[in-house]
Amino acid sequence: MQLATSVTLSQISKLINATFVGDANHVITGINEIHMVQHGDLTFVDHPKYYDKALQSNATTIIINKDVACPPGKGLIVSDDPFRDYNILTQKYRPIQTSTSSIATTAVIGTGTVLRAGVVVGEHVTIGTNCTIHANVVLYDHTVIGNNVEIHANAVLGADAFYFKKYADKGYTKMYSCGRVVIHNNVTIGALTTIDKGVSGDTVIGEGTKLDNHVHIGHDTIVGKNVLMAAHTAIAGVTTIEDDVILWGQVGVNKDLTIGKGAIVLAQSGVASSIAGGKTYFGSPVQEAREKMKEMALVKQLPYYIDKLRGLLN
Amino acid sequence: MQLATSVTLSQISKLINATFVGDANHVITGINEIHMVQHGDLTFVDHPKYYDKALQSNATTIIINKDVACPPGKGLIVSDDPFRDYNILTQKYRPIQTSTSSIATTAVIGTGTVLRAGVVVGEHVTIGTNCTIHANVVLYDHTVIGNNVEIHANAVLGADAFYFKKYADKGYTKMYSCGRVVIHNNVTIGALTTIDKGVSGDTVIGEGTKLDNHVHIGHDTIVGKNVLMAAHTAIAGVTTIEDDVILWGQVGVNKDLTIGKGAIVLAQSGVASSIAGGKTYFGSPVQEAREKMKEMALVKQLPYYIDKLRGLLN
Amino acid sequence: MQLATSVTLSQISKLINATFVGDANHVITGINEIHMVQHGDLTFVDHPKYYDKALQSNATTIIINKDVACPPGKGLIVSDDPFRDYNILTQKYRPIQTSTSSIATTAVIGTGTVLRAGVVVGEHVTIGTNCTIHANVVLYDHTVIGNNVEIHANAVLGADAFYFKKYADKGYTKMYSCGRVVIHNNVTIGALTTIDKGVSGDTVIGEGTKLDNHVHIGHDTIVGKNVLMAAHTAIAGVTTIEDDVILWGQVGVNKDLTIGKGAIVLAQSGVASSIAGGKTYFGSPVQEAREKMKEMALVKQLPYYIDKLRGLLN
Repeated sequence: MQLATSVTLSQISKLINATFVGDANHVITGINEIHMVQHGDLTFVDHPKYYDKALQSNATTIIINKDVACPPGKGLIVSDDPFRDYNILTQKYRPIQTSTSSIATTAVIGTGTVLRAGVVVGEHVTIGTNCTIHANVVLYDHTVIGNNVEIHANAVLGADAFYFKKYADKGYTKMYSCGRVVIHNNVTIGALTTIDKGVSGDTVIGEGTKLDNHVHIGHDTIVGKNVLMAAHTAIAGVTTIEDDVILWGQVGVNKDLTIGKGAIVLAQSGVASSIAGGKTYFGSPVQEAREKMKEMALVKQLPYYIDKLRGLLN
Repeated sequence: MQLATSVTLSQISKLINATFVGDANHVITGINEIHMVQHGDLTFVDHPKYYDKALQSNATTIIINKDVACPPGKGLIVSDDPFRDYNILTQKYRPIQTSTSSIATTAVIGTGTVLRAGVVVGEHVTIGTNCTIHANVVLYDHTVIGNNVEIHANAVLGADAFYFKKYADKGYTKMYSCGRVVIHNNVTIGALTTIDKGVSGDTVIGEGTKLDNHVHIGHDTIVGKNVLMAAHTAIAGVTTIEDDVILWGQVGVNKDLTIGKGAIVLAQSGVASSIAGGKTYFGSPVQEAREKMKEMALVKQLPYYIDKLRGLLN
Repeated sequence: MQLATSVTLSQISKLINATFVGDANHVITGINEIHMVQHGDLTFVDHPKYYDKALQSNATTIIINKDVACPPGKGLIVSDDPFRDYNILTQKYRPIQTSTSSIATTAVIGTGTVLRAGVVVGEHVTIGTNCTIHANVVLYDHTVIGNNVEIHANAVLGADAFYFKKYADKGYTKMYSCGRVVIHNNVTIGALTTIDKGVSGDTVIGEGTKLDNHVHIGHDTIVGKNVLMAAHTAIAGVTTIEDDVILWGQVGVNKDLTIGKGAIVLAQSGVASSIAGGKTYFGSPVQEAREKMKEMALVKQLPYYIDKLRGLLN
């Protein structure tokens, strides 16, 4: 997320009672998880395996649990628990709301938009014009909805990322999600569909995309324009679904990958790593559909070939 | 859907500013999508591939985007965009509701029926006697529920069909769903289950059928009597599930097919085309379960046979 | 379930107008389904196949539809329909609530706990301290929630078990669920997740466990500590998931089995029978992941080997 007003390295270090390395007036303009960082961002790293990646990333301020040389033009904050301190900062700059009202007073709702009974709209949500939000839909804080969007009953936008750090002593601890859900114009979202907020960036659904019922979209995933997803499709976090992709029912998609423009994935398939656009896929894990079909046909012929082989062996 | 009162070919053409071919007083008694048409119905066709099918169907009035000879006893309406005009007509005869009340004043609710907190009941819904509708269930307009029906929390009945036409210029446009959901007596519907309304006909759940949690039933699908569906099963649109079928968890079923009476489909299977009743199936796509089991056993023996083959090759 | 105060064999027989065999003052302290019985419990059996199992179980009182010898120290109740009479008793001792209020007056809610808008809390629910229950969550009667628990929007805890007896004449009849859902401390439950109540015992989620969105947990299932389940995972009833297990997205797990401590089950896999802890699994049904990977690699080499075999045959 971007900060409303920038802060300095010394100011932010003071908030978490940590020492810093670098110019006290070094400027921080945003806070982001490592996958999302850009110039001006603060991020964190707590595992030696990722030190170099974090120090050499676009992030210009890094909370780290080791004394290392500060890269030129950057700032470091040394902490015994960077994850804890990062969580403290994101919660400070995007406080958890505890309102129990149905429609937050800070929400902005466009003309021509209808909210049916039981809809819950969190703080700082914006909804465009001519939308229909069906009964009992829940929009968490900071969700952004474009124009002409339809969201069917009991869908949930903006729940937390499924993202935890496991401590040896106290078990799984939640990464506090400070990101948002952003829905572009002319999107339709099915009943009982979930779209999780970004951990620090945005989970985005592109213009004209249509999601069926019971779909799940993980945190920080970017879905392009005019994508179709049939019922019960589940997309993990930090994945990119390019324009015009079609995912049929009960498809599963792994995290950190890209499905290329116009790809079609047949029902019940599982996408474990990136696949190119313009082709049709099937299987778990997926192959090109016609290859998978050939393979399945061959397996059906096994009794014939094994019989032949037995003949040769006798 | 059936019209409350019949209209003439000239009247209906006037509503969409289109010219007609046939007797001005030719009678229209219903509006239905091509899969559901019967005598007296108006339907539409906009693709040369389907002209003949539509013209020769039970529909007696057809909106079409080409000048063709009018079949005897029928009426034609010529339109540059039959899909658009069909959508205009269905919305005229079944207007979109914009009520924001929880229980519509036009709903009819039988004696002995309990609605828990947060239930939302749309316009013209009817619920029979001795039903329990658990908290936060949403029943869209025109839903029909029989007697002794139990619907668990947060289920959604009557959301729109997942049915869009793709225009080259403006992307996916929703087919306006004017059908209904019809639930017969003694049905149980699990928590967070969705049953979509028919595009123009009814989506039907037969007497005594039991659906578990997270089930999805697509538009215009007909489910028979005493069917069991376990959690996370997803059925696409316009499919027929005959009486006494059992679908175990996470089964997926394609559109436009029939599962025969008493068939059993094991967990995580995918039904891609029609299957006969009275048998047990497994796999994605399904085969008869015992054949699939044999096939899987054979695959496990491949190392043995390949070893033998290698011996012959040396 | 345990009875608030114990009753005698003659008292309970009178409630269902049935005759008993044994000491009129024989004591009953609980009512439980056969999988859950302990000393002092009443259970039922109505099929010759299970007579011996029920009579020799820990249950000390059995409703049975046959005149059999009463085991020493036990009591029998003879009934023409034990299932019906068992259902009468469970409903007598745990009556169905028909309250339509949002937050039942009998609910106990700890300090620091926040209930967002639209939350529905049933009778006799207890929620610990510092919990966040997000909008439109539904907690059925008798649910027990520990401390520091977070439940995301529209989740449903405590809906009925998917458990029916099929009568030849009247079809499926629901086993009345008198069990509970029990959530231990520091658990996170995703949006639109369902956890069904036990038929007669408890469905339990252990301390520190994290469930993603759209997860389904069946009745009487016991989930251990620090378990992770990704989106769309479905667990059937009466299953045990030991500590530290990880189930990735869209995994399905059958009923009446155990997944051992620390097992990892990869996405879209199906667990049909018990699997040992400490290993990684894949496939439907699952195998150890590396064996499954080898098998899949071998299938991909089939064209090569079949070509070789054809060479030998010519």
